[in-house]
Amino acid sequence: MRATIMYKAGDVRVESVPDAQLVEPTDAIISVSLACICGSDLWPYRLLEPQPAGRRMGHEAIGVVEAVGSQVSRIKRGDLVVMPFAYSDGSCDFCHDGLQTACTLGGFFGVGGVGGAQAEAVRVPLADGTLYRLPVRADDALIPSLLTLSDVMGTGHHAAVTARVSRGRKAAIIGDGAVGLCGVIAAKRLGAEQIIILGRHPERLALARAFGATDVVRERGESAVEQVRKLTGGHGVHAILECVGTDEAIRTSIQIARPGGAVGRVGVPHYETIPATQQAFYGNISVGGGPAPVRAYIDTLLPDILEGRIQPGRVFDRTIGLSEVPDGYRAMNERQALKVVVRP
Amino acid sequence: MRATIMYKAGDVRVESVPDAQLVEPTDAIISVSLACICGSDLWPYRLLEPQPAGRRMGHEAIGVVEAVGSQVSRIKRGDLVVMPFAYSDGSCDFCHDGLQTACTLGGFFGVGGVGGAQAEAVRVPLADGTLYRLPVRADDALIPSLLTLSDVMGTGHHAAVTARVSRGRKAAIIGDGAVGLCGVIAAKRLGAEQIIILGRHPERLALARAFGATDVVRERGESAVEQVRKLTGGHGVHAILECVGTDEAIRTSIQIARPGGAVGRVGVPHYETIPATQQAFYGNISVGGGPAPVRAYIDTLLPDILEGRIQPGRVFDRTIGLSEVPDGYRAMNERQALKVVVRP
Repeated sequence: MRATIMYKAGDVRVESVPDAQLVEPTDAIISVSLACICGSDLWPYRLLEPQPAGRRMGHEAIGVVEAVGSQVSRIKRGDLVVMPFAYSDGSCDFCHDGLQTACTLGGFFGVGGVGGAQAEAVRVPLADGTLYRLPVRADDALIPSLLTLSDVMGTGHHAAVTARVSRGRKAAIIGDGAVGLCGVIAAKRLGAEQIIILGRHPERLALARAFGATDVVRERGESAVEQVRKLTGGHGVHAILECVGTDEAIRTSIQIARPGGAVGRVGVPHYETIPATQQAFYGNISVGGGPAPVRAYIDTLLPDILEGRIQPGRVFDRTIGLSEVPDGYRAMNERQALKVVVRP
Repeated sequence: MRATIMYKAGDVRVESVPDAQLVEPTDAIISVSLACICGSDLWPYRLLEPQPAGRRMGHEAIGVVEAVGSQVSRIKRGDLVVMPFAYSDGSCDFCHDGLQTACTLGGFFGVGGVGGAQAEAVRVPLADGTLYRLPVRADDALIPSLLTLSDVMGTGHHAAVTARVSRGRKAAIIGDGAVGLCGVIAAKRLGAEQIIILGRHPERLALARAFGATDVVRERGESAVEQVRKLTGGHGVHAILECVGTDEAIRTSIQIARPGGAVGRVGVPHYETIPATQQAFYGNISVGGGPAPVRAYIDTLLPDILEGRIQPGRVFDRTIGLSEVPDGYRAMNERQALKVVVRP
């Protein structure tokens, strides 16, 4: 089969690899109907040190179950499923608490001998706990939105939850990538009354407005802080969804927080320490977040997609075949594409 | 009148100063029945740069109202009151949300022309919002415990609340000072099933056990982390009450957190940035806390003191007169005294 492999920063190839096969009795194999390229894939695309064996890429997919191991009982051959970006057994204490990204047996795609989803097929460990059967057909118009349940919509929701968005609160979203835009959807869905997006890309900001953003701040750093304060009567926002992962983004997040506010960070942190410690302390500002337990959020978010109340699939602005994946990375990295769907 | 003034690190004096007087119509003057020396007073005692005019000290008191300004209506002359360590108007948005330490008109004792409580009397700004009338007499046996409502008990409670202690959870308290010990009380009160205290002082650890600590860890750094993991089945604790304020304390807090856990920090931070950022992120560990809105917590904690369910006054192990305050600082700094009561 063909699969996407990254060998070093900027070097993504689609190559022939051995077919995905069941290894553990708890595995399933899915043939990938739709995958996508993630903003987080751009970090290795920019920074990955040379990997002689390469790294399998892709952690978001909708697919059809082709085979299941002998201990898989809930998921069946032929099921149309969405695959969260982390696999989890669904039964440990952490899964029970809804923190599947801390599952004691769980892990991530593309590492530790587990393949990636930017491929014709992928082996899914702990299939019963990981996969979620979709109540639609593979050609349903909602499929792109449902695909976002594997990562970006659940991640935006996690940012909003950990930033404690609730009815009547003021929220700010740092970053106009797909996760940031899903963060706008999530903030609106949870009842935020003011939703400020900090970003620069005109089309993405237009989409943010369509999703419910009430204000746009194009500045960065100190002037962004000043702008947000101006927009919020001087005090800042209750909830900050940090969807970038840079030192500047986390610093700005804390600086625009209203006393008592909360930062939910979901941007993979490319900073060593959390700055603005004194400001966070004296303002009683909490900093939370991390890899989103998107598996836990599917039950919450699915009805809103099925009933058309949210349309996160609008973040996809380009569809490509598997052989075009390297160009998809390039386009996303150059911000020519917001989020790319891969149809293997 | 006499009041405590700190001129530089190690230089605390009790001197004659002009009597406390009403300045604003919202002020009250209280004659101090009991004050105390705070662990946070030890930071300037160790580090204060020379202050030619000196800094008034003391922010915890029970006293009798001697005079009130023309706009004070709720508090009356003769009331026995407890004075929270921050003053607040009780009516702004932040006070309304229970975050009095962010009151838009509020502030702290000992700075900005407001005196300190280690004195015969003190001017209390925004008296109606700040002061809390006590339903006991000045000679009540509960007075020491009630005095802790002005800071340490409310602060320990804030650490527990921001660390999200709840029934059945595992908690750890970093620090065996008065706030840490009140943190043990608070963790037990909120239903923690396992309460681990990290400290070294035998008598304080004995008191921690009396307050409900189930385990003691005397190690620091990496070996403390190892010990806590051993005590918690390998995963760490849900809730960490950080009651010290050093870089090592906040680092250890994050390192002993269970995935999904929360750190409530109330130790005044003497570190520039929050470390262990990656660990906090991948574990979905949140870091919150700050100056405790103790005013908000009096309603919650008072009944438990009045009805004898909690006895935070046991943290006081020495009572002195005003003239002995310099020696009280020395004794606390040398850890000869846990927490010193001042009876002016």
